Amino acid sequence: MIFGVGLIGGSMALALRAAGGVSEVVGCSRSEANLKEAQRLGVIDRWTTAPAQACTEADIGVLAVPLGSMQGLSAAIAEHWPSEAVLTDVGSSKQAVLDAVRAGFGELPRNFVAGHPIAGTERSGVQAAFASLFQDRLVILTPADETSPLAAERVAAMWRATGARVEFMTPAHHDHILAATSHMPHVLAFALVESLARMSESDEIFHYAAGGFRDFTRIASSDPVVWRDICLANRDAILDVLQRFQGDLDGLRQVIARGDGAELEARFGFAKDARDRFSEKMQAQLDQ
Amino acid sequence: MIFGVGLIGGSMALALRAAGGVSEVVGCSRSEANLKEAQRLGVIDRWTTAPAQACTEADIGVLAVPLGSMQGLSAAIAEHWPSEAVLTDVGSSKQAVLDAVRAGFGELPRNFVAGHPIAGTERSGVQAAFASLFQDRLVILTPADETSPLAAERVAAMWRATGARVEFMTPAHHDHILAATSHMPHVLAFALVESLARMSESDEIFHYAAGGFRDFTRIASSDPVVWRDICLANRDAILDVLQRFQGDLDGLRQVIARGDGAELEARFGFAKDARDRFSEKMQAQLDQ
Repeated sequence: MIFGVGLIGGSMALALRAAGGVSEVVGCSRSEANLKEAQRLGVIDRWTTAPAQACTEADIGVLAVPLGSMQGLSAAIAEHWPSEAVLTDVGSSKQAVLDAVRAGFGELPRNFVAGHPIAGTERSGVQAAFASLFQDRLVILTPADETSPLAAERVAAMWRATGARVEFMTPAHHDHILAATSHMPHVLAFALVESLARMSESDEIFHYAAGGFRDFTRIASSDPVVWRDICLANRDAILDVLQRFQGDLDGLRQVIARGDGAELEARFGFAKDARDRFSEKMQAQLDQ
Repeated sequence: MIFGVGLIGGSMALALRAAGGVSEVVGCSRSEANLKEAQRLGVIDRWTTAPAQACTEADIGVLAVPLGSMQGLSAAIAEHWPSEAVLTDVGSSKQAVLDAVRAGFGELPRNFVAGHPIAGTERSGVQAAFASLFQDRLVILTPADETSPLAAERVAAMWRATGARVEFMTPAHHDHILAATSHMPHVLAFALVESLARMSESDEIFHYAAGGFRDFTRIASSDPVVWRDICLANRDAILDVLQRFQGDLDGLRQVIARGDGAELEARFGFAKDARDRFSEKMQAQLDQ
């Protein structure tokens, strides 16, 4: 049962089908057009726009909706969700999801396992879904104290079937790490594109932008609602790392302003070394 | 005659050879190892480490060295460069190059045409050179008042032979536009990677970074010396756009801090629209 059949939910369905890991995939979303498209694309077998329906037959459920919809969706299924069925999510902020599910259900279901696949593209919607999205990617599971270890193992097995590697950490630690690696870069990319687009020469600026700019700003084409919700849900961790970055950027600006070539070369060289190590490690993982 | 046989100089040589536009390519650089490698790779026909040598036979010359080396190189060839031969460069800051060449030669040669191909990769060195680097890319030429129109036309024709499209603008305007589209994003990418690499959890942060982060930080793997020189040469324009961006980023941070979801969604949506339009236009150019 996939709640929210977009890029992530749709790709999960496709990956689990490809792995032969599911007998039937039921899609649930607010939009009938979205669900019909998902069925046409072979992503789901059948669908409903009523979250409470079809719950009774569900074996495993995935909340793949924007963070802002987690609590309402949880409340809508709370009375109907079978206590023995496993439930998980794919939200980018784990403390916020646990709070939302806890609030929606009244208490956190023992079979709810919070999770987050570190995968995606700047595109959104079920049309962008593809079966290999999670291949060799990391999925972080953040069980709460109440979470059943057996449920966590079932969710981990489901993710491994999609080709992903599974790791466990606490919700707070997840949120701190993801603020640095994902949320803050998205905020920066949105901010940069917005800043340039508001300049009087913006048309010309975008005309002369090239491949480096295209890659740097790719994530600024991400879904604004998803990222609005992430910024609201993981606000404190994002503000921490953003403020730190603002201080570092201002330091670098001062180095440029005083024309200190040796310091600039040292800083850029330090960053390049870190980026090259990251890139080699990522390539090695993909080559495994 | 290519002075500085790295990614750009080497790719120019390969592209011009592929187009049948040159009879012989002579490479000149400080490093014998680099020149031997370039010869082994078929990028150049022969080489010298003495800039003054071989100048007398040159028909067209390209200064493809870091900005910081332009003045010294100009001074080294000034006495030897044939006045009828055309000279150009590929530097990322055009006012600085014109100043450097003017200082090196004593006065700006009429046959010097400042130019800048809007193309590159985060890799550097002749090993990274390839013939199609400039295919369908823009090259900006910024002739000075003294520049011979005939020389400008010869340089434009050379670039068109590599597959590039040529546009003309003033040096100051070039520097302003490039600060926004290229220089500031590079500074941001270096700053972000440095900021994260200095955090105590940096190993973990890079471990959990994914494709969005990889693309966002790709340009932080660029050559530190090249970017040191660009920041020094185009300092004022970079500081202008960087300060503007810092103000905009701080505004966005305040929106996150006060949890204003509607404003966040509007800003992210504005940025996404601008990025999507840029992306479509870039794709359309590549498809032409």
